[in-house]
Amino acid sequence: MDYMLFAIFLAACFGAGATGMLFPTGTWYENLDKPNWTPPNWMFPIMWTSIYLLISFAAARVAGLEGSGYAMAFWAAQIAFNALWTPTFFGLRRMKGALLVMCCLWISVLGCFITHWQLDFWAGLAMLPYLIWVTVAGMLNYTVWRLNPNTPILDLTKI
Amino acid sequence: MDYMLFAIFLAACFGAGATGMLFPTGTWYENLDKPNWTPPNWMFPIMWTSIYLLISFAAARVAGLEGSGYAMAFWAAQIAFNALWTPTFFGLRRMKGALLVMCCLWISVLGCFITHWQLDFWAGLAMLPYLIWVTVAGMLNYTVWRLNPNTPILDLTKI
Repeated sequence: MDYMLFAIFLAACFGAGATGMLFPTGTWYENLDKPNWTPPNWMFPIMWTSIYLLISFAAARVAGLEGSGYAMAFWAAQIAFNALWTPTFFGLRRMKGALLVMCCLWISVLGCFITHWQLDFWAGLAMLPYLIWVTVAGMLNYTVWRLNPNTPILDLTKI
Repeated sequence: MDYMLFAIFLAACFGAGATGMLFPTGTWYENLDKPNWTPPNWMFPIMWTSIYLLISFAAARVAGLEGSGYAMAFWAAQIAFNALWTPTFFGLRRMKGALLVMCCLWISVLGCFITHWQLDFWAGLAMLPYLIWVTVAGMLNYTVWRLNPNTPILDLTKI
């Protein structure tokens, strides 16, 4: 594996993951009705850090391989939607909009999983926890949206 | 060029560009002191749409070429930092933080320009307007930050 490549992909993950630090959960999220299977708050940074390391490893393994075009395109798409989700949910409190972002993210991650798997066994395996986690996160987003139908979105133009 | 690849890279751009619709400029930005060379508001969506089309074209041309690993890694990094900038500046009103994001974005775009250029003349050329535009945007970010030193950031945990 090319460690410099790994570092650049990890920098991309850091860009997306920085939204989690910049838009913290806070009391608004605490006060939402959530399903009893909601993962505890401490679990999210651990899961995301592990996933970011795994997907950077996966990308560094397949980048530049012959036929890696689709794998790289899906990887770029997932990191963009990943960066978009947190500001949409925690910044704007748009739970329905965030669910739409989550659908785009889920499709991108599925695309990543399939294309990485076809190129390299270990790269595909490294994508699997991400696919499982965005499935859980998507179900959580959907459920929280349905449990809190009247939560107002945050209109930044009025602040 | 593979049009399906182009579409996936464009979807990534749409993910990053959606922040421009979700976090509009509004009165807060209007009331900031800005340099006299600030581009008019209508110019931003035109520039970004053109740039997104150009960089998706560039990525679709080089993706999967032998030795395209670094080009794809820098492309992924730029789209993540691109998605991060708008929520940081317009969402959180963190001008200094946004400047840091802009530095990361600028380095990623420079990396894209060099690596795409080495692989394909037209892909490199298509990256050039982006490099120029993020240089202007970075200078604008810096100048607006210096002209408005006492602007409070938006603390979402208190809303």
